[in-house]
Parts: sequence; structure tokens; C-alpha cells
Amino acid sequence: MKKNAFYAQSGGVTAVINASAAGVIATARQYPEHIGTVYAGLNGILGALHENLIDTAKISARAINGLSKTPGGAFGSCRYKLKGLSEHQAEYTRLIEVFKAHNIGYFFYNGGGDSQDTAFKVSQMSQSMNYPLQCIGIPKTIDNDLPFTDTCPGFGSVAKYVAISTLEAGLDIASMAATSTKVFILEVMGRHAGWIAASSALAQASADQAPHLILLPEVIFDAERFQAAVKKHVDTHGYCVVVASEGIKGTDGKFLSESGSKDAFGHAQLGGVAPVLSNMIQTRFGYKCHWAVSDYLQRSARHIASGVDLKQSQALGVAAVRFAIEGKNAIMATIVRTHNNPYTWEIGEVPLEKVANQEHKMSAQYIREDGFHITNACREYLLPLIQGEAYPQYKNGIPVYVRLNTGCIKKKLAAFQLPFR
Amino acid sequence: MKKNAFYAQSGGVTAVINASAAGVIATARQYPEHIGTVYAGLNGILGALHENLIDTAKISARAINGLSKTPGGAFGSCRYKLKGLSEHQAEYTRLIEVFKAHNIGYFFYNGGGDSQDTAFKVSQMSQSMNYPLQCIGIPKTIDNDLPFTDTCPGFGSVAKYVAISTLEAGLDIASMAATSTKVFILEVMGRHAGWIAASSALAQASADQAPHLILLPEVIFDAERFQAAVKKHVDTHGYCVVVASEGIKGTDGKFLSESGSKDAFGHAQLGGVAPVLSNMIQTRFGYKCHWAVSDYLQRSARHIASGVDLKQSQALGVAAVRFAIEGKNAIMATIVRTHNNPYTWEIGEVPLEKVANQEHKMSAQYIREDGFHITNACREYLLPLIQGEAYPQYKNGIPVYVRLNTGCIKKKLAAFQLPFR
Repeated sequence: MKKNAFYAQSGGVTAVINASAAGVIATARQYPEHIGTVYAGLNGILGALHENLIDTAKISARAINGLSKTPGGAFGSCRYKLKGLSEHQAEYTRLIEVFKAHNIGYFFYNGGGDSQDTAFKVSQMSQSMNYPLQCIGIPKTIDNDLPFTDTCPGFGSVAKYVAISTLEAGLDIASMAATSTKVFILEVMGRHAGWIAASSALAQASADQAPHLILLPEVIFDAERFQAAVKKHVDTHGYCVVVASEGIKGTDGKFLSESGSKDAFGHAQLGGVAPVLSNMIQTRFGYKCHWAVSDYLQRSARHIASGVDLKQSQALGVAAVRFAIEGKNAIMATIVRTHNNPYTWEIGEVPLEKVANQEHKMSAQYIREDGFHITNACREYLLPLIQGEAYPQYKNGIPVYVRLNTGCIKKKLAAFQLPFR
Repeated sequence: MKKNAFYAQSGGVTAVINASAAGVIATARQYPEHIGTVYAGLNGILGALHENLIDTAKISARAINGLSKTPGGAFGSCRYKLKGLSEHQAEYTRLIEVFKAHNIGYFFYNGGGDSQDTAFKVSQMSQSMNYPLQCIGIPKTIDNDLPFTDTCPGFGSVAKYVAISTLEAGLDIASMAATSTKVFILEVMGRHAGWIAASSALAQASADQAPHLILLPEVIFDAERFQAAVKKHVDTHGYCVVVASEGIKGTDGKFLSESGSKDAFGHAQLGGVAPVLSNMIQTRFGYKCHWAVSDYLQRSARHIASGVDLKQSQALGVAAVRFAIEGKNAIMATIVRTHNNPYTWEIGEVPLEKVANQEHKMSAQYIREDGFHITNACREYLLPLIQGEAYPQYKNGIPVYVRLNTGCIKKKLAAFQLPFR
């Protein structure tokens, strides 16, 4: 019997994750002999657990096209990680109940490391509990920290935004430095991997330009060396632009901006490295400092999304459905770089088992010897990912983004109480 | 005898101030019988005081065109306010020395309130010290706080950036709110006037959407009322997006984020309202909060500049030169709104005497009764200013911005020591 599909978005959303959703939904429609309805889970895996399912058949082709141009997660995302099968059996039993009730045979999960772990656990469940389900992971993470894929959808657009912002703010401060601000610090995301901060380097055409210093989480932060480097740039160029990853740690192994609060996955919630650095510099040298924290702005900046990123995001959604139809299971679709300059790529695959809970950080060959910048090899890796300006349409001076108003389908099962966490 | 012109940029720079510069330089070239060389001052009025003059005749027509598409202040700006004539006579004597040495008969000063004050003082000097000089102010300020002009060049582009960023971040947090972030706070510029924060409202198509709350410096911040309003929106919509002006003050009259440090004009240096609000909400309700401070990013975001803003900025530069040729003096060029919907405008003028040191704040008719949002009248005023997407060209995924490498001309006079401040 023909099976239905479940698709959901998980973890921090991006400027282009909806393009993956559009790829999944539009492609599934091309294979009506294989796939019945695509149900989108409301708020990731929680949509399955609570039987909050959105019937994507009700979404017009036009709205699906609009979806691919809309940032954020149109179906709602979640930060909810399944525990091991043995620990929380009840959750898995519930998933199978819901999947059975709605004849789900395909499971597409769109997210980062934690989400691929969820996809992997669901695939293990399928085996051990003997419920046939094809599980395909679709990568997504602005941090670019998934292994086995050339890049992660969402990252290229953040990289482009951060490079452009660094270029623009650099021109601003260059104008002001003679009598006012001498140091500008831009804080960007990147908990453990410095790819986003690194991408600011693409703004730099010569060494006198911004960014002068890049602080990566892969490099232990040394306050004394940092201060000396800032002073050197102010002395030489009249100003200094610093791009700092939120995740930099001091020699004591603590986040520079440890806030004490934690997210639902138990990770420390970060934010606020920039003011810490700013105070440090202002106190030491008396330079007037300005700082910016782009936070969600960087990852939702669909207005200047990377064309390459958008294409890859959509292509991975398309590929996930095709893999499923080919009978594949327990894999994540990947981007394989087939050539540099000109950049060419194709779709690949990797077993979910290998991906789950791994972090792909910047390697030493991508970090300049002094730790404060990237190498040419890194630039060569990054540059193709920000190519192309995938502008949205505008109406009245504002981008036209779609908001789906498709409610959830009628439930067939009783309510489910999440296990205490 | 034909006179030369002096042009300079002053105060915080914008995404489009160079378009005014391009307007001045290109238009002056069209009147060679009236205007000789346009000398640009390096770093505003300091360029005149230190005789650091850039010969703009050396800049190609192509580079001038590129200039109009480049953010920041290409000739360097300054935060340096001239004291009264009686206080610092030496500065004025020096200005006249420099202007005489370079046969300057036209003075174009491009900036905000403090800069128009400088232009006014220079025009007073011209009279009282009997040195003939036509002084024309060209408005510029992202804060939109100059009186007698419909809007200030630079503002429309910030407004567009802030509206788009609010829209995008709003979609992001809407996706996350079920299990993660419930409150997002975007801090924007605006020391005494709330126009920038107000413009975020243009993102909102219906009351359930971001921004839910706008904090304006015109409204005294009441922590209790604010917290209740945040809770109401979280209860109703699941999340709350707040856009806060850096300049909001509490009932004690102090800036919420008083940092203690001051800029060269003696104004308190702000930044950091967002984390203050975030801590307040997190402590009170336990909601997970995220916050962003866009700082220089908002005012340098040429990549998404408003088409209307760009046109007005250029037109004001053009008009300033024409006014000078018509023999006008001691005026600032302005934008006059001739019609709403469709928006039409023309160039006007106002005596510098009236403009200097005045702040045009938001009036009560533009602020919603509860103080947390704008009225329809305000929306009608703001909306035309963000129309059109004045995209720059891109190369290798990065905007093509020009960097002038024209050095200063040879000095004719001895060095000048600025009076002790």
C-alpha cells in the first residue's frame, strides 16, 4: 500500500530551510504512485508526538514557491532531543502509534547535529520495534558544523550576510575613526565552530581592511595577545574591526560570555561576547568602541540570501524524496564538492549513524598561524558558498514572505503526555 | 574671480551620504564658469582646520558614480563641533586663512543637527569677519531628527533595514517559540527621537505579527507596564518581538543603559538597552530571550538601501550646488513632501539659523495611545520613505564599493594646533 510521509524542521531555523521543505513537498507531488500525503509536523518531532500534523496537500503550488523564498521555519521548529530508546520507550511507542494511524512510511527530518541524531534514533526504532520506515535526514545548520557534507544549508546565507555586514560596518568606522570610534566588534553565532566568524574574512580585499581580527572558538582566547593585536591595528590603520564568535573560550575553558542560562538541550545559552571585549579594550586603551550583536538577524536575513545556498537547500529536499523512493534508509543527503573554481557540486549521502552528534570544526589548515584570521585555503573553501544574490520579491518596500495558515488535521488518537524531563 | 568650493561630511555616516557627495561633485563640474575645484575636507571641518584637502577633480566620473553606491563617508567624517565665535576665535581665523589660501567661496557641509550648527557658525563668521562665503547645509542623519525637512537622507535606508530585519527575525522566533525563545529584543539607534524604532512597525501586516512592542525615547519607560505587555503578547501569540530605541529613559530620567562614557560632543554614549530588557524579562517570567544590537550595521547597510532615500540624498547634493550658484547663502536644502500616496516630493530650503541644534521628535499623533506602537498617521508618513531597493553591484558575492585613494593636496600654510578642548 502507498505510504504517506512525515516532514519536520528542527533546531535553529535559517534563511533557506523552507526551500528544503518546498523541495520535499513539490517533489513528493511528482511521485503520487509512491508517496501519498506529506504531513508536516508542527514544531518538529513534537508534531509527531502530539499528532499535530499539517496536510501539505492543502498548500497551493504558488504558496510552496513562496515558501522557498521565506525565512524561518514555516511549520515551526523545536529544540527537543529524543533520549535513547531504552530510556524513553514511551516516546517511541507513541511515534509508532501516530505513524501507524496516519500510514506514515517516510520520515524526513530537517536539521543539524541534534536533529540528525533524532533521525538516527527514529531509524533505530523502526528496526528494533519492527515498524517499516524510511528515514532520511536533510542537513540544515547555520553553524556549518555537520560532517560529511561540503557545507550545510543556511550557512552560505549567514556567511554572505556577515561578510557584507563586516564590509559595510568597516567602511563606516573607517570614516569615523579620526575623531570617534576606533574599534568595532561584531559578534556572530557559532557555538563551537568558527565558520561564521571566518566568513567575515571574505569582506577583506587587502590586509588594511576589515575584518582585522577574527576570534574563533577553535582558538583559545588570550586577552593579552588580543589587546596587543587591537592596538597594533589601531596604530597602523587608525581603527580595528573585530569579528568574534559567540563561542570563544578563555584559557580557563569557560565561555567568555557565560550567561549561566542553558537551552533545552542543556547547552549554555550564549550572547554578549561583544560587550565583554568592548569593555576590555575601552578600559585598557581608552579607545571609543562600538559593538553589534546580530543574533537572529544573521540567520533570518533572507533578503540577502546566497544563491548557491538557496539552490543547495532546495536540492537537498528534492534529493531526500528521491532517495526515499529509491528505497534508501537511515541516510542524510549531503553536498559533495566536485570542483573548486569554478565551484561545482552534486548530491551525495552518508549513513545517519556516522553523522549524529559530530561537530565539524575548522581545521588548523584553515586558521592563520597567529590564530586571528583565516588562510587562503579557507577563503578558497568559503568563497563559492556566498555566490549569487537570491533576492525575494518586494511589495511596498518590504519582502513578500508567505505565512501558511494551514491548520493541523483532525487527531485520531488521544492526547500524549511528554515524559518528564 | 571664480571661486573654489569646500565640501565635507560630518557626524555619524550613513548608507547614502556619499550619494550627496557625488551629487555635489558631479553638479559642480557642470558649472565650470561658476565653480572651480571642489575640495573635500578630510574628516569634516577638521579637513579645513588642518588644511587636509582632497582635490575631487582627480576623481574619475566612474569613481564618482561608484561613490553614490558606497556606504560610509568616503572623505572621512568627524565629531567636532565648533564653539561660538567669541569663544574660539582662533579656529575661525584659521578657517578664513585656509579658505583664502585656496580661494574657497562655497562651503557645503553635510551632516545632522550639530553639523548644521557648524555650517551656521561658519556663515556667521563669514559675515562678522567679512570673508565672503556661501554656506549651504546638506542634511544627513539616520535619526531623522532635523526639523523643516520631510525626512533626512540616511533615515529611509535605516528604516528599511530595521523593518526588514524585524520581519525576518519575527519569522525566526515564531518558528522557535513553542520550545525555545519566546522574546526577541532588537535594539536600534535613536538617541532622542524614535523614528528608527518606529519604522520597524512597517514590517507588521497584522497585530499578531512582529513588532509587538516598540519602545520610543519619546515615551517614558515604565518597567511594570512593559513587563505586563510582554507577557500579554506571549500569552496571546506565543512570543513577543520588541524593538527598542537605544535612547529610552526610565522614570528617573536616566538612559536605561547609561554607560557613563561620553562622545566628543559630550553626549552620553549609549548601547546595551537590549541586554538590560532581556535580563528584566528573563528574571521576571523565565522566558528564554534573545537580543540583537544592530549598531553600525543598520546605518551602513547599503546592500538594502531605500531607493527613495538614495534619490533624495543625491538630489540634495545637486540642489546645494544649484542654490549656491543662484547666490543663496546660510540655508539648508530640504525635502518637501508635496503629496502622500502616491508620495511626491521636491527640494526646498530653510535658513540655517532655524535648523541648528533643534531636534525633531515624534509627535503625539504618531504614537499609539498606550505608547507601545505607532499610529496609522505615522505609518502613512514612514511608508513612502522605504520604497525601492537600491541594490549595489556585486562581484564574487560581495558588493562593489569604491575606496578613493586620492591623497590630500600640498599644504600652503603652516600646521595648526587645535585649541585645547
